[in-house]
Amino acid sequence: MIYFEDIEVGTTQSFGSYEVTREEVIDFASKYDPQPFHLNDEAAAQTYFGRLSASGWHTCAMTMRMLVDSMMERKAASLGSPGVDKVRWLQPVYPGDTLRVESEVLSKRQSESKPQMGSFQSEMTVYNQNNEPVMTMVSIALMRVRADAA
Amino acid sequence: MIYFEDIEVGTTQSFGSYEVTREEVIDFASKYDPQPFHLNDEAAAQTYFGRLSASGWHTCAMTMRMLVDSMMERKAASLGSPGVDKVRWLQPVYPGDTLRVESEVLSKRQSESKPQMGSFQSEMTVYNQNNEPVMTMVSIALMRVRADAA
Repeated sequence: MIYFEDIEVGTTQSFGSYEVTREEVIDFASKYDPQPFHLNDEAAAQTYFGRLSASGWHTCAMTMRMLVDSMMERKAASLGSPGVDKVRWLQPVYPGDTLRVESEVLSKRQSESKPQMGSFQSEMTVYNQNNEPVMTMVSIALMRVRADAA
Repeated sequence: MIYFEDIEVGTTQSFGSYEVTREEVIDFASKYDPQPFHLNDEAAAQTYFGRLSASGWHTCAMTMRMLVDSMMERKAASLGSPGVDKVRWLQPVYPGDTLRVESEVLSKRQSESKPQMGSFQSEMTVYNQNNEPVMTMVSIALMRVRADAA
């Protein structure tokens, strides 16, 4: 199990491989972001996107899936998250893209009011298969302190 | 059609009514955030959440749906968004909750490099049926300038 004490500022990680399918792009957009350029190529051709592209919120969701898979693999003592900062959708994400994530721990802080937990900030950059950054964000994660240390 | 010129700093809006179902909470979490406390009540009972609650990214997605429906109703000349700041998940969102949004325009700015568009920032607060704020964020939206003004 990985605890708050094990998080080191400056540590970088590389994880995930998520294949973006047309079916999933349209399914997500139909439910949550039914703007025409996220639903069909014809409408997208008339915009900056050029062709059907994923909702930015879908990119966030796919990134979260890669992050959760990585956390579970590392058995991180996660306690959820209070939020995220500076989400930037830099490039369109298209069906056929394969996404991956690079993260770097920016800072960490043990809670004063709840010494059994701490929080750390990470900068996440999501790349496509051409190594173009498509999204960046700064996540905040809560993590358990080792039982004998709390 | 609502254009960039029609956006006024300080304007507030209230929109949306989204019923959160157990089926949808589990479906979203299974795909994008399969942490145990988003998948079943038993695991959630051992955490801060107490019972099954929606992924924070699911709350973002549901909020986007309310926003898109509102934009389409008002025929906003939307050009997408470069990102979002200060997303904060304040309270758990539970199956059975009904969400709504209040927004306030914080600032607006015409693009210097692309005078046919402008951006504006809005603070969004999502409330549940008990009028508790469950999420806040600051969105950035791009919007078309009237053709004769660009």
